[in-house]
Amino acid sequence: MTDLTDKARTLIDEPNFAYVATVMEDGSPQVSPVWIDREDGRVVFNTAVGRVKERNLRRDPRIAISIADRGDQYSKVDIRGRVTDFVEGDEADRHIDKMAKKYIGQETYPWKSPGEQRVIVKVQPERISEM
Amino acid sequence: MTDLTDKARTLIDEPNFAYVATVMEDGSPQVSPVWIDREDGRVVFNTAVGRVKERNLRRDPRIAISIADRGDQYSKVDIRGRVTDFVEGDEADRHIDKMAKKYIGQETYPWKSPGEQRVIVKVQPERISEM
Repeated sequence: MTDLTDKARTLIDEPNFAYVATVMEDGSPQVSPVWIDREDGRVVFNTAVGRVKERNLRRDPRIAISIADRGDQYSKVDIRGRVTDFVEGDEADRHIDKMAKKYIGQETYPWKSPGEQRVIVKVQPERISEM
Repeated sequence: MTDLTDKARTLIDEPNFAYVATVMEDGSPQVSPVWIDREDGRVVFNTAVGRVKERNLRRDPRIAISIADRGDQYSKVDIRGRVTDFVEGDEADRHIDKMAKKYIGQETYPWKSPGEQRVIVKVQPERISEM
């Protein structure tokens, strides 16, 4: 367990993309970009139930996250940690709207598919390195 | 095995960053940004001998790579594949200078540490998805 650093907080609070890596059932790696947030010292993102990364993290909660400054890709933070919570339902729907506001300036997330269930994934940081 | 798509080639040929994910010895994921290139249908990047990702890939060659357009982060390609070659020595030194030219407009890579050995990592794509 470790606290988020000042730099990690700053990079998360700006509309920077994070790249999250998970491990597939066969042990191979998987990586994809996400919108990123934080809450009570944890790193938080929002995905849809059934996506590859969500299924991987339900099976193996270990995750790696790399966040670079969108204006200076050489300024970055790497976080390794573990998923502690998955939160679905109204809270997840409100949260993806909050993320849409932050990243694309829209009040409501515009890309929700019919039947899609959103889920907040909360990550406890265990190791942070900065560059 | 699969061929690089037109979109993958375009994203690689521009100075976009790639995020590469590998697996640690304990089975947890690792992710970091790299400068990216291609050669004979393979995806290529340059790192230093002894770095975490290089050690991981020597043990387990499976890799995931995500590349987004620096001007439109929602335009991206995800590649999963396997490392086929590690090339060290003069060829790797010339290649990192080529990457420095592409990404930072300098003739010579300016951040080489004393004693650092560069290595080209070549990846055979096995599965590509685009967004």
